[in-house]
Amino acid sequence: MKIGKWKILDSKYIIKRPWLTARVDKVELPNGVVHPEYYVLEYPSWVNVIALTADHQFVMVEQYRHGLGDVFTELVAGVVEENEQPLHAAQRELLEETGYGKGDWQLFTVLSANPGSMTNLSYTYLATNVEPISTQHLDETEDIAVRLLTETEVKALLMDDRMKQSLMAAPLWKYFALQGL
Amino acid sequence: MKIGKWKILDSKYIIKRPWLTARVDKVELPNGVVHPEYYVLEYPSWVNVIALTADHQFVMVEQYRHGLGDVFTELVAGVVEENEQPLHAAQRELLEETGYGKGDWQLFTVLSANPGSMTNLSYTYLATNVEPISTQHLDETEDIAVRLLTETEVKALLMDDRMKQSLMAAPLWKYFALQGL
Repeated sequence: MKIGKWKILDSKYIIKRPWLTARVDKVELPNGVVHPEYYVLEYPSWVNVIALTADHQFVMVEQYRHGLGDVFTELVAGVVEENEQPLHAAQRELLEETGYGKGDWQLFTVLSANPGSMTNLSYTYLATNVEPISTQHLDETEDIAVRLLTETEVKALLMDDRMKQSLMAAPLWKYFALQGL
Repeated sequence: MKIGKWKILDSKYIIKRPWLTARVDKVELPNGVVHPEYYVLEYPSWVNVIALTADHQFVMVEQYRHGLGDVFTELVAGVVEENEQPLHAAQRELLEETGYGKGDWQLFTVLSANPGSMTNLSYTYLATNVEPISTQHLDETEDIAVRLLTETEVKALLMDDRMKQSLMAAPLWKYFALQGL
């Protein structure tokens, strides 16, 4: 069994819009088998933030998620703009969505929502000692409410499977695994 | 700030193929703002499995992932077929991809790769005491190698950010968080 890179024999875009870019590739596997129709979703990098205040509250957001059709409490997240650094994007999103800023920032984990079909990575930052320094600055299509949660409340979100977004559940479980649940 | 369900004013499919179904919705937010172009990806349910042998080895697979363009060691995973139960799909995928079966199975966590744009959920099962009962039965477009990893090796995958797939990283971190890292 040879496990290795596929050769792209042909590739064409189905759609190229600001929020969805999809292409279909004709690919050849190392074993010579040709897969005529493999779909790839191209996205820019994403970021999210585990943001903690000095008194150990998690700065999170409540938001409607149209794919699943329900309201969820999530980490602050967003898209990295062109020529922007992921860290800057994460700091920008935290400020825009919650008004919180400052603090100490470190890259915590880098994940993919789906390595098979998606081209981008999601960068999670751990920001400690953040504090309110401004008000929310939302786009008009963003309806987001700020929520401060205790550690117990965040653990309950995870344990009850209410933190559905795996790009957020993974770093939060990592955070609690490393510090001892 | 009213956080609540969006109203779908219009909806049309861009593509409906076995491996990609995408639609664009025109939606109205609770605040009355209309978003003319919101993309939704419709997928069937997915499954993956944390499969452990009686001597605590993780039954995993090595596979090329075309979105990120690299080879990864991952949990066994797959798609739930029509009228199939997720548990059955998980057991079927483990058997097809690795030849392992039997054991004790429980639903471990239910996640989403992206609740904003994707409609489906991913069901993770924890299967203990699995054993080799058959050989691999792969589709010709699947190039998958079976890998048995120790707990230490799986933790290293997570710590080094080599387990990129968040739908697998989250349940694995949960597993280690619950048992004490």
